[in-house]
Amino acid sequence: MNCGDGIDTRQIDELFINLDPIQAGGRLTTDAMKAVLAYGDGYSVCDHCTKPFRLDHISKPPLAEFHRDLASFLHMDVARLVPGARRGFQAVASALVKPDDPVLLTAYSHYTEFLSVEQSRGIAFEIPANESHIITADAAADRIEEVIRTTGKKPALMFVEQVDYQYGNLHPVADLIRVAHQYDVPVLCNGAYTIGIMDVNGKELGADFLVGSGHKSMAAPAPSGVLATTNEWADTVFRTTGIQGDLTGRTFGVKEVEMMGCTLMGVTSVGMMASFPHVKRRVKEFDTQLQYVNRIVDALLSIIGTKVLSEYPRKHTLTRMNTTDSFDTVAKTHKKKGFFLTSALRDRGITGILAGSTRVWKFNSYGITKEQADYVAESFLEIAQTEGLPCSS
Amino acid sequence: MNCGDGIDTRQIDELFINLDPIQAGGRLTTDAMKAVLAYGDGYSVCDHCTKPFRLDHISKPPLAEFHRDLASFLHMDVARLVPGARRGFQAVASALVKPDDPVLLTAYSHYTEFLSVEQSRGIAFEIPANESHIITADAAADRIEEVIRTTGKKPALMFVEQVDYQYGNLHPVADLIRVAHQYDVPVLCNGAYTIGIMDVNGKELGADFLVGSGHKSMAAPAPSGVLATTNEWADTVFRTTGIQGDLTGRTFGVKEVEMMGCTLMGVTSVGMMASFPHVKRRVKEFDTQLQYVNRIVDALLSIIGTKVLSEYPRKHTLTRMNTTDSFDTVAKTHKKKGFFLTSALRDRGITGILAGSTRVWKFNSYGITKEQADYVAESFLEIAQTEGLPCSS
Repeated sequence: MNCGDGIDTRQIDELFINLDPIQAGGRLTTDAMKAVLAYGDGYSVCDHCTKPFRLDHISKPPLAEFHRDLASFLHMDVARLVPGARRGFQAVASALVKPDDPVLLTAYSHYTEFLSVEQSRGIAFEIPANESHIITADAAADRIEEVIRTTGKKPALMFVEQVDYQYGNLHPVADLIRVAHQYDVPVLCNGAYTIGIMDVNGKELGADFLVGSGHKSMAAPAPSGVLATTNEWADTVFRTTGIQGDLTGRTFGVKEVEMMGCTLMGVTSVGMMASFPHVKRRVKEFDTQLQYVNRIVDALLSIIGTKVLSEYPRKHTLTRMNTTDSFDTVAKTHKKKGFFLTSALRDRGITGILAGSTRVWKFNSYGITKEQADYVAESFLEIAQTEGLPCSS
Repeated sequence: MNCGDGIDTRQIDELFINLDPIQAGGRLTTDAMKAVLAYGDGYSVCDHCTKPFRLDHISKPPLAEFHRDLASFLHMDVARLVPGARRGFQAVASALVKPDDPVLLTAYSHYTEFLSVEQSRGIAFEIPANESHIITADAAADRIEEVIRTTGKKPALMFVEQVDYQYGNLHPVADLIRVAHQYDVPVLCNGAYTIGIMDVNGKELGADFLVGSGHKSMAAPAPSGVLATTNEWADTVFRTTGIQGDLTGRTFGVKEVEMMGCTLMGVTSVGMMASFPHVKRRVKEFDTQLQYVNRIVDALLSIIGTKVLSEYPRKHTLTRMNTTDSFDTVAKTHKKKGFFLTSALRDRGITGILAGSTRVWKFNSYGITKEQADYVAESFLEIAQTEGLPCSS
């Protein structure tokens, strides 16, 4: 079956338990699927657009209310939709970073955070992680001091990841921000792996900017995301246009420069909005998801030689494992080589781990049920036992 | 019926002939609707993403082929997907325009073109239109001369609209570009109303950059669009990242700075791709659409006092009318006031004209059938006759 010339219908989440590190939190809800059909056309949300002609003022469909709800959900003052978290990074960097300004990132910052600095012609300085793969406030303070000493400037902006993409570790963002604020450095907290999955309170974190990803963690179509900020910073990052047509005298109302006017129309905004009630509920149930991921990790750890590289017990479902001394020993002689593991998982209806991985690999169990968690855990053990690997349980 | 809390199902194009100026070319095809369901999840296109890990290299679904096809469809060397035409403007302005650089736009440039200049801190200079609402090459030459004389700099970039949003007029882009090139000014041709609707040949136009909108004219979900360029400019606007993590030594492969890495995943890219075979066919049938719009304009012009403000006969389906001396005379005494016209149209199953308009208003008949064109034309005449307006036919 296909859905257009040469485009096979994708049926991953229909047929498999999908442990893909980046896909888990972005799966559409049924309401989002209905919404993308009803609002498939981009300008479908513009039927009732009246003065002042901006996406976040449209009341039918209820986008204005959704924007207010999003800000309040994040405990921030103002929120805007953006075409992916990266476009939130871009907007903040473009508004705050001037050429040659130092900008702090972390050893686990995402490439799109770096790209936003590069586009603004800033200079990147990383805050190192400690041995437990955590970015600490002390490390941030040291790096800020060093940057000021060596460049003569305080950093124009600091990026921190609430949960990073490499280890899925939860970093002490409130502490990191407190330190940055002592030096008057504004902080963007990257919540791409947390907003929509965990309860995120921007006020408690002290974040100046909070960025989330619709398609990574809010069950929304791509590209979508949210950029929220405080009243203090809203006038900077959401400043309205001041440019004018020099002959016609045209001005452009309340369109926001860094947003490039309206941002998400149709499937993306309405998809996010349709999933939002579900998202608000599911962030309250994250502890259950932690039980499930720890159940899987515990099963893996009972295979002798296996290590968990992420912090343990897990505080997030995205997890990095090292099976060099367990599954990889099998790969050396298995006829399917390194592919034996993902192949055996696939035979059991489990997918999403990078094909061929038997050394260091990631999985994300977000969204599974208790029965599925048990099944995944047992499947790993069963594969280990089939291949003759010793297990402690 | 609704599709999520408080979100009514939209049924405009299901129940009405929709003449909305901005919606006509963006309506999804059936294949695009199937695709958005099958690829609703953003990272659904990433299942088979392998080295060098970039959207335009993914071969399943066939995004790599789609990128090549798009470039060849536009007769340009390289094409990238962007989250809306505005993000194409932004990328080009960010790459080419330095603070205080003069940038040429036209009297009909879209606000997002202005915003892209504002974001890059350039200075906007408009090329005026002539009395027929056309931007001429002579006017462009005069303005370039004036900008060089008064600022001491040649413009860093010139924006021209192939068909503008105000009048729907077709401007002499090839001539405009030829003039700009005489002064070594690179030109971005805004094809938001043409690419996907008309046959656009970037090579014949001589465009350095060609930008199209997926949700405006390519039957694709929003935000989507295309930015195409020549080999000469590709290294500038699609330059790959050079930034590095100063402690970890991390680099970020072939990700493109102005694209912020990968751009459109899931519904937007696959929706565009699913509609593309239909789009390639329909651009060949644009003459038929011109017959239909001219049929409607002729009917309107036969209502005494009515004027067409766009060029006539029409060369595009987006059309600006002036009915101040016809329908607006009725509005003065009608119990529904200015709303009588759009209300009478709606009673006849026709929608999309700004509610309450009886003076200057726009419509876009793109995508209708011959029968629908006849029906719309007759409906306007019938409403005029019902209200006692004299008609010449």
